[in-house]
Amino acid sequence: MAERLVVIGGDAAGMSAASQARRRRPANELQIVAFERGRFTSYAACGIPYMVGGLVEDAQKLVARTPQVFRDRFQIDARTGHEVVAIDTGNRTVRVRDLSEEREFDEPWDHLVVATGAQPLRPSIPGIELEGILGVQTLDDGLAVERALEGRPESAVVVGGGYIGLEMAEALVMRGLRVTLVEMAPQPMRTLDPDMGALVADGLRKAGVELRLEEPVEAFEGQGGRVEAVVTSTGSLAADVVILGLGTRPRSDLAGEAEIPLGETGGIITDRRMRTPVDGVWAAGDCVETFHRVSRRPVAIALGTHANKQGRVAGMNLGGEYATFPGVVGTAISKICDVEVARTGLNEREAREAGLEFETVRVDSSTRAHYYPGAEKMTTKLLAELGSGRLLGGQIVGGAGSAKRIDVLAACLWNEMTVDEMQGMDLSYAPPFSPVWDPVLITARKAAEQRRGDE
Amino acid sequence: MAERLVVIGGDAAGMSAASQARRRRPANELQIVAFERGRFTSYAACGIPYMVGGLVEDAQKLVARTPQVFRDRFQIDARTGHEVVAIDTGNRTVRVRDLSEEREFDEPWDHLVVATGAQPLRPSIPGIELEGILGVQTLDDGLAVERALEGRPESAVVVGGGYIGLEMAEALVMRGLRVTLVEMAPQPMRTLDPDMGALVADGLRKAGVELRLEEPVEAFEGQGGRVEAVVTSTGSLAADVVILGLGTRPRSDLAGEAEIPLGETGGIITDRRMRTPVDGVWAAGDCVETFHRVSRRPVAIALGTHANKQGRVAGMNLGGEYATFPGVVGTAISKICDVEVARTGLNEREAREAGLEFETVRVDSSTRAHYYPGAEKMTTKLLAELGSGRLLGGQIVGGAGSAKRIDVLAACLWNEMTVDEMQGMDLSYAPPFSPVWDPVLITARKAAEQRRGDE
Repeated sequence: MAERLVVIGGDAAGMSAASQARRRRPANELQIVAFERGRFTSYAACGIPYMVGGLVEDAQKLVARTPQVFRDRFQIDARTGHEVVAIDTGNRTVRVRDLSEEREFDEPWDHLVVATGAQPLRPSIPGIELEGILGVQTLDDGLAVERALEGRPESAVVVGGGYIGLEMAEALVMRGLRVTLVEMAPQPMRTLDPDMGALVADGLRKAGVELRLEEPVEAFEGQGGRVEAVVTSTGSLAADVVILGLGTRPRSDLAGEAEIPLGETGGIITDRRMRTPVDGVWAAGDCVETFHRVSRRPVAIALGTHANKQGRVAGMNLGGEYATFPGVVGTAISKICDVEVARTGLNEREAREAGLEFETVRVDSSTRAHYYPGAEKMTTKLLAELGSGRLLGGQIVGGAGSAKRIDVLAACLWNEMTVDEMQGMDLSYAPPFSPVWDPVLITARKAAEQRRGDE
Repeated sequence: MAERLVVIGGDAAGMSAASQARRRRPANELQIVAFERGRFTSYAACGIPYMVGGLVEDAQKLVARTPQVFRDRFQIDARTGHEVVAIDTGNRTVRVRDLSEEREFDEPWDHLVVATGAQPLRPSIPGIELEGILGVQTLDDGLAVERALEGRPESAVVVGGGYIGLEMAEALVMRGLRVTLVEMAPQPMRTLDPDMGALVADGLRKAGVELRLEEPVEAFEGQGGRVEAVVTSTGSLAADVVILGLGTRPRSDLAGEAEIPLGETGGIITDRRMRTPVDGVWAAGDCVETFHRVSRRPVAIALGTHANKQGRVAGMNLGGEYATFPGVVGTAISKICDVEVARTGLNEREAREAGLEFETVRVDSSTRAHYYPGAEKMTTKLLAELGSGRLLGGQIVGGAGSAKRIDVLAACLWNEMTVDEMQGMDLSYAPPFSPVWDPVLITARKAAEQRRGDE
């Protein structure tokens, strides 16, 4: 008799797992059912700000595969509008609520993949329940923002200056709104150090976003149940729409209630093959915690590329192969207005939290040879461990062509290189792409020189 | 009494060596004289095609530091128009010809840096001595091309499809000439494999360059001493200007005549500190051979970035520090018309020559998420060693934003990673920069899958 795989969550991680398992085991051997409470499967959540900003014409473009495609081409029974409300690991069933018909049923499984994703943080601030205060996590969330914009609002307040918050701020400026960003920290983009975040702040201001930094939100106010203003420590800001960009946490309550172990980050614990400690139960994507190769600590990082890889690993293992997810080094990249932003490894705060001592170096260089048209400023910052000189992290902020260079630093971190080794690397050079000394090499060289000077 | 450092060659390698030595030893301790036979010091030779193409307004923009600056700011006696015609390693002198006054003199040294660069290959084909057949190596060469263009020529033939040849072909198209590229090989860009070179050929044709592939040049014809046509195996091509883009060889004759040992590549042999086997004699830049970290063989690669690094290493050592040049992995990058091109490590021919067995994988992906505006095609090819799975080389051809990703592969080669390890790397992802699976990772993944299939 065929075995039965149930997948909870129909986005990147869940559907990668399902597809990879199917590739290796036909339907007469393994039945696969995937439950997704939203209306879409397998979509690019990272594309939502570009849909809102008008760069992507419609939501369907963000959908890689519809439920129909999963059914017809992969014999995967992908059911949207179905929310799993409980997991029974003893009887190996899940309790499913069909949201359209308001009925519940039990579904048995031999193998379970938990891929419930992340949920946006919603602070318990007075008025948070008002209409028009929107998180941006799922494609349905994105469409809710689209609907809010149909009422031709004039002003928007973005609360929180993380990636999604800043990308949404840009999108709303592109849609013609007056946009204010409210952030508790001294600079936006807290995954960068403040000196690098300040460069992002400059770019936002240039694009017309008003920044209110070091201003905690104290309340949301409204009329008739709809938000109209955001009250901060210094005053009240008119707001027809409020976007929450305060980050996310793993959506792991369902797993936690079923006594599937959660880690210190709140994410589900898995081994390198993406197995939870509960027999038959796998987990992947934004709902799990993973291993940070630099800090050597668990982290929960919500990112589509990790979700895809982890889902693939789970599915390969379910299909009878041996595959592992090797952990992360904390790489992230974004484009905020005209500013490209990227980071990898540990920033200063994270390095201190990991108990590491370090020195930093920051270098302004340019994306192309200075005489080549279109050369733009590019600032690179590195953290190197005291004593060993091991690279701990890197940050890049600059013009077009800056940010993707972070991948070199990610590769250096992956291989535990020191800044002394890095300075001699054979990185590419031609005038349209780099000064004769690549900016990454210049920065490594300065870090190595600083170390020699310290001796 | 002060010691005396003589530098032969006033470009990247020589002047880096001089500057770094000066940084560490003041003029009352170390006198520095640099002889340059051309009219310029310390210029970006790689920028010449962009000067010819009109992207860079004038030659002075390519000059990083003039002789005056070297004299005034660094107390380095940089003399242009001075050609060193002989080295005496026994008496520690060089014979110098002052080209403006046509006189010769001997100059003593305690330390000598040979940085004589590369020379363009000039095949011994009938008519090669005709006026209007130009190599492009020095800034003076570039100005000679500029002068040739002042006569408003209509047609140009570029002989040889290497980097400089192709960059010059593009530059001449931008200047409104009818341009034909004549190449003996089946595809241009022989540092790429033919399947990848074919993609570059497409880009050249689209930009309006006529390609004559597998057509050896048999003669140059002219009237009144000036070139008028290029005769190939299939016919005659009108040519008001001919550009030689056949590559270079180390300009090491002067060193060879002084019995400074040359290697199998024709380049001067040095150790990792850039010392030649002759006591007191150092060498750096295009005139030396270096260590290829993948093939583990000597190579001579003429590239400004290596010259800079090697000159710096020589100068640091001359200044009393301990510095080494760690070798190369063969990284190169270029932009030919709208096509970005990059390579690192070994191509198929080079891997075979190194006695390595390998498999290849080639993947078409895109520079950005498929739904993000401006996503362009990007083709990535990897070579992996049979058995070990060690990465041996990579090639990228694609639209804007493709080529600089080669640096990730260079970092992987540097660390001797296998394609199996590479597929899990934490490379950056956001829709403006990459599909959710980075193209480099997809290609590594396919290579790893192919290996598993081979088992």
